[in-house]
Amino acid sequence: MQQKLVNSRDNALLARASKVVPNGVWGHMATRAIGPGYPQFFAKSDGCRVWDVDGNEYIDFMCAWGPNILGYKQPDIDRAAIDQIGIGDIGNGPTEVMVELAETVVDTIDYADWALFQKNGTDATTTCVTVARATTGKRKILVARGAYHGAVPWCSPSVVGVTTEDRAHLILFDYNDRASLDEAVAQAGDDMAAIMMTAFRHDVNRDQEMPEEAFLKHARAICDRTGAALILDDVRAGFRLDVRGSWARYGVKPDLGAYSKSIANGWPLAAVAGSKSMLEGASKIFVTGSFWYGSAAMAAALKTIEILRTTDALAHIEAMGQRFRAGLTEIAARNGFELSQTGPVQMPMVRFLGDEDLTIANAFCAAALRHGIYLHPRHNMFLCAAHQPADIDRALEAADAAMKDTIRTAR
Amino acid sequence: MQQKLVNSRDNALLARASKVVPNGVWGHMATRAIGPGYPQFFAKSDGCRVWDVDGNEYIDFMCAWGPNILGYKQPDIDRAAIDQIGIGDIGNGPTEVMVELAETVVDTIDYADWALFQKNGTDATTTCVTVARATTGKRKILVARGAYHGAVPWCSPSVVGVTTEDRAHLILFDYNDRASLDEAVAQAGDDMAAIMMTAFRHDVNRDQEMPEEAFLKHARAICDRTGAALILDDVRAGFRLDVRGSWARYGVKPDLGAYSKSIANGWPLAAVAGSKSMLEGASKIFVTGSFWYGSAAMAAALKTIEILRTTDALAHIEAMGQRFRAGLTEIAARNGFELSQTGPVQMPMVRFLGDEDLTIANAFCAAALRHGIYLHPRHNMFLCAAHQPADIDRALEAADAAMKDTIRTAR
Repeated sequence: MQQKLVNSRDNALLARASKVVPNGVWGHMATRAIGPGYPQFFAKSDGCRVWDVDGNEYIDFMCAWGPNILGYKQPDIDRAAIDQIGIGDIGNGPTEVMVELAETVVDTIDYADWALFQKNGTDATTTCVTVARATTGKRKILVARGAYHGAVPWCSPSVVGVTTEDRAHLILFDYNDRASLDEAVAQAGDDMAAIMMTAFRHDVNRDQEMPEEAFLKHARAICDRTGAALILDDVRAGFRLDVRGSWARYGVKPDLGAYSKSIANGWPLAAVAGSKSMLEGASKIFVTGSFWYGSAAMAAALKTIEILRTTDALAHIEAMGQRFRAGLTEIAARNGFELSQTGPVQMPMVRFLGDEDLTIANAFCAAALRHGIYLHPRHNMFLCAAHQPADIDRALEAADAAMKDTIRTAR
Repeated sequence: MQQKLVNSRDNALLARASKVVPNGVWGHMATRAIGPGYPQFFAKSDGCRVWDVDGNEYIDFMCAWGPNILGYKQPDIDRAAIDQIGIGDIGNGPTEVMVELAETVVDTIDYADWALFQKNGTDATTTCVTVARATTGKRKILVARGAYHGAVPWCSPSVVGVTTEDRAHLILFDYNDRASLDEAVAQAGDDMAAIMMTAFRHDVNRDQEMPEEAFLKHARAICDRTGAALILDDVRAGFRLDVRGSWARYGVKPDLGAYSKSIANGWPLAAVAGSKSMLEGASKIFVTGSFWYGSAAMAAALKTIEILRTTDALAHIEAMGQRFRAGLTEIAARNGFELSQTGPVQMPMVRFLGDEDLTIANAFCAAALRHGIYLHPRHNMFLCAAHQPADIDRALEAADAAMKDTIRTAR
């Protein structure tokens, strides 16, 4: 069952790309940043599978880094969007689909009284910050150290091409650490516009942390007391953990939330959801984009949310995530590895204990590719509703074989 | 031929939207900001026509504010994109379509040695600024007073929710004014990262100005001397005036250019194009987005650029623009109005002389809607390849009738 992983076409495409694109491929999908053995170019995707340009097939555990929640090329969703293209995607204003989608978001997300739509997750996080400042008249934004909120100067993980002033009003705290948050709040003084947090701590290359309910409630109380906005950056986790918003289970309602990735199962869309207290501020700012009223992606989102609400898709994803996690634990034990598996099972982070330099993780993931599964050595992964028990079992067989390869090569 | 313009469904939708969306509709497509009589919600679009939700039909001169260049629902373009969706839109990396598109952009745009792709025009202008800073190690960005470069805090036309620091390194000059540019350059001192300009001066509510060749060459010489980047913001005009880039006819090559709007005939895409001198800087920055490698919009862009390069579409758009401009001049004279018609005919700005408070323009545009054409009283308009001589002639009849109505009501 081992693939030969001939990469001749991939290498040829990367050579072509390198002549006309910075680094050949930019951003988070540049696989040279992941580790050895990763194909860079894909020929097609379907369900929970991707095929590279050399014809190798993989059961995919990255889901396009999140957007794929109900399966690549889910036919009902693509049909809804393509039907809308047949009517009209863009024009000189929105279609009724925008109203239906806003109503649906408000009806679905527990704290949402209004919504507006965009294209990138970064559009949504940036707009949340702007709305918070417009509402409060204050400037400081408290963000957790190491959190990813997007890739524009105010929040980019890189400071190349960024000025000090772009981040002049950011104050850092540690996720789940009350004392650290209190200190940041004190530092903001009477100039605090918002506390912004990801749904859980999903920083790269470390154990993930679910938010502590007491910590979220403490942040909520601070915002209630000061008038600052509590912002949930739900771009990565949103809709996958809970269709009501990722903090619904904790009973903590943010004032603003940012969504994108899985909201339309891969069709390009982002959303800001907000509470009534933020509506006036949101009505005063100016944000816009040429394609933000495109109805096709909105029709895809309507269908995606309908399926998430009316089927057991999310319970299924969770069950598949549990099956995968339990299986990995067993396989690791059998092969003499100890794993740290953290974060929600729907977005698993798998680390090898004692593997600080990622030697084992990189060898394991490279071997996993040869055995037909696409994993990530240091970023959270994603499961989708197209993963079936047989896919998980097949992936576990591949993981077992990859661990055996790893023992031979890396340990 | 006059339409009744029953707006009952439009009003009902706006009332619904206002309950769940800030202002009902946000951004540049909020028609309450244009003037009285404008429908807000559209049912469909096709070719050069849009239909509002009450069934009124309009020959459209806004083209979705630019994206529509070859006709709404152009079948070859939509087919290319939908075929790609059938193969796979997004996955864990790009497809070959990305490489083909980058090669095509480099082969098409006269100064481009590389390209990368995004979703919003603002993504592209922001990335140009970041690349310029990464390349030069300097901070100041010179922009023309009143120019629109996007809707995020560093460049938004609104300052609500924006901090002073967001614009700390912007220095303003006046478009086409050498002395003013020289002054800004002196102010930047040895900290100048870039001079950024739109393709022509297409500011709202004023006569448009084509760039003076001597001014562009002066800016180019300053950048050559100082090492600063010359950035062409071609988001609005790009591909419509000249497929090689909007300054190709002046023989002035920018170092970086931002594209979006018409690049994929309405499918959501943006691009940064750059010269070799900017490649190293572009390779060092981190910019990304969840949907930036979506292949469907790239397939649409490939087909759009192919059509623009291999057919007389751009010459046709220009001819239709000339026909429209000449006809309006004649009709205005017949009705006793004097018009200022500025900017390229493909993106016409039409103003009534002596109409500072827009009383006549607003009355004329409202009447035009009743006669079945969708114009804008104070923003540049757009023509597309789907406009045929008969459409222009029909639109001129409507404009004539609208001027006669305007005489009765507004003068």
